[in-house]
Amino acid sequence: MNKFTYYNPTKIEFGKEKENNIGEYLKQSNIKKVLLVYGGGSIKKNGLYEKIITSLNRNNIKFEELSGVVSNPVLSKVYEGIELAKNNEIKAILAVGGGSVVDSAKTIAAGVKYDGDVWDFFINKAQILKALPIFTVMTLSATASEMNGNAVIINDDTKQKYSISSVLINPTISIINPELMATVSKEYLAYSAVDVIAHCIEVYFTATIHPHFNSRLVESIIKTVIETTEILLKNPNDYDARAEFAWAATQGLNGLTPTGTKDGNFPNHMIEHSLSALFNVAHGAGLAVVIPAWMKWYKEKNISQFKRFAKEIFNNNDENVGIEKLENWFNKIGAPITLNDINISRKEIEALADNAYETAKVWGMDTIYSKEIILKILEKA
Amino acid sequence: MNKFTYYNPTKIEFGKEKENNIGEYLKQSNIKKVLLVYGGGSIKKNGLYEKIITSLNRNNIKFEELSGVVSNPVLSKVYEGIELAKNNEIKAILAVGGGSVVDSAKTIAAGVKYDGDVWDFFINKAQILKALPIFTVMTLSATASEMNGNAVIINDDTKQKYSISSVLINPTISIINPELMATVSKEYLAYSAVDVIAHCIEVYFTATIHPHFNSRLVESIIKTVIETTEILLKNPNDYDARAEFAWAATQGLNGLTPTGTKDGNFPNHMIEHSLSALFNVAHGAGLAVVIPAWMKWYKEKNISQFKRFAKEIFNNNDENVGIEKLENWFNKIGAPITLNDINISRKEIEALADNAYETAKVWGMDTIYSKEIILKILEKA
Repeated sequence: MNKFTYYNPTKIEFGKEKENNIGEYLKQSNIKKVLLVYGGGSIKKNGLYEKIITSLNRNNIKFEELSGVVSNPVLSKVYEGIELAKNNEIKAILAVGGGSVVDSAKTIAAGVKYDGDVWDFFINKAQILKALPIFTVMTLSATASEMNGNAVIINDDTKQKYSISSVLINPTISIINPELMATVSKEYLAYSAVDVIAHCIEVYFTATIHPHFNSRLVESIIKTVIETTEILLKNPNDYDARAEFAWAATQGLNGLTPTGTKDGNFPNHMIEHSLSALFNVAHGAGLAVVIPAWMKWYKEKNISQFKRFAKEIFNNNDENVGIEKLENWFNKIGAPITLNDINISRKEIEALADNAYETAKVWGMDTIYSKEIILKILEKA
Repeated sequence: MNKFTYYNPTKIEFGKEKENNIGEYLKQSNIKKVLLVYGGGSIKKNGLYEKIITSLNRNNIKFEELSGVVSNPVLSKVYEGIELAKNNEIKAILAVGGGSVVDSAKTIAAGVKYDGDVWDFFINKAQILKALPIFTVMTLSATASEMNGNAVIINDDTKQKYSISSVLINPTISIINPELMATVSKEYLAYSAVDVIAHCIEVYFTATIHPHFNSRLVESIIKTVIETTEILLKNPNDYDARAEFAWAATQGLNGLTPTGTKDGNFPNHMIEHSLSALFNVAHGAGLAVVIPAWMKWYKEKNISQFKRFAKEIFNNNDENVGIEKLENWFNKIGAPITLNDINISRKEIEALADNAYETAKVWGMDTIYSKEIILKILEKA
């Protein structure tokens, strides 16, 4: 077991109607003015916006708004938010939405407290030293951004999808009310399920040290995601399934699963980021395409863990059957599983590999993932 | 799934040699003077004391000492610590030891900031509103006290073993170096294993709502404890087994496993506390006696979860076999499983039941656990 530091100071408020207390939570934290960040406006249609504003007003919390954050969130919108926050004496960022909104909020929170270009953090040119506090109300569970210090943003100029990580941008309080997720489309539920499974299996398969305890935690999350996704596809209003899915998703990338592991990395995310960056593919959809291809290429390097996966998740002793069953499950829940399924043709593979190799360099993974290797994996997709 | 708040701001520093940085961690937290709390002095024999002092001195951290904390820690020692801390401008408590030392440190930390009698917190006469920061270096893993806000103390006057719980007494930083635990006796390892399993199964069996995800987390911890205990009984120096045991123990009572459950309670702890309080039985030993008896009495009330337990932990479909196998396992690792094994005779059962019923009242469990019911359970032991 490898040495580690585990520190996750985010407070989770989980359950029905918790969003009505957002104003109280902000007040208890001595916040008097927030930048309210959200997406395309669905929160205005479903009444969530109204609830949030009511709670803010009741607690005399002033606010400015930044709307229009898109999935695969872009840097230009982040710049807009930083400008708004700087000009309006904003004391905290309140994100209402899914991972894209929260990641944008985190980047704004760090950018406000930095004199240079916030993109510096993404290309390892500068380190986050300060950030505004962040509060979230989640409307989609997948990225665990509500309980970690990670943010992923696409630079719309350079077409780079890069990430930052710092405990300084862990949300102070995150509200997870599974009821707010009941309207998530079946398509996005499937993508979310794939994303959570991806978070779990990246380190599970790639770490050179992976304690049994961690394998069991990861398998607990995957089993829960599979079980609850199948329930939710039949009955989107099953509160308990939605709640278990949400909490398992949070545990999937809040820092717990990789504790004590060594050398784990995120090759599927690395390659997928190029799909999102170049072709605006939904993150979970891209992962569903990359994962089976990567697994087929990688399995020989950690055969015992692939056998374990097949056994624990699909009750089968053959590692190839484990991969096949996961691929079939992605297909069954409606996720794409080939590049063809997402309308990417063979001739575009070259550009994808180039872009992913750049990410490999930034993430320090280029010694394993040369352009040729990435091409080989993409060929299998 | 029930609503919940999850907040655990304790930072864990896990791994070899981390204790050498305790001075640096304190310095980073702006602490200039600590009260060093420890037990019977084994840390002086094995060199840990020397390492801690060296680290403190290197960072110009002054300290006072409180030694002699016993397992089943007593209130009189806590009073002594509070007095020492108040008279010496102590800014933090540094606990070096196992759960008893940490629980004493937490109680001192709360007591220093309270004008009344610290026992008020234990009998629900007052609430903890402030506490000194707490730092720990663990030498035994079992109670998860290193990552929660719980403390259990015996009032040596009244023979009450009661507890407090507040996030204000969560340690700021806890150091877990599994190497420091290599000298734990086989007896205490067994007791620790029982204690961790007890933490896991209390809510697992008693909650009226218990999501599958939580059951899987609990089962992950129990499987890990069983696996690693068996390795450690053969080879106490197996670092990885010691490390997995330690981290599983921490997860067993850091607030994660009961998230989203409803109405779970701690009857085995409740009854065991009377064994410790009246007969100074080691906590884990007492639990090993109480648990099988309680399970036999309770199983009808939650038969599906007892069947699940038998299946998941012992791969058997019969709930009675699950209980029997756990009892046998306690026996196999050297824990007592009857009152007779710990030299408590039938005529003492009455006094035990009286004492436990008093705890039931303080814990709000007296509607289920009448004196007659407690007697019935003790009869099975």
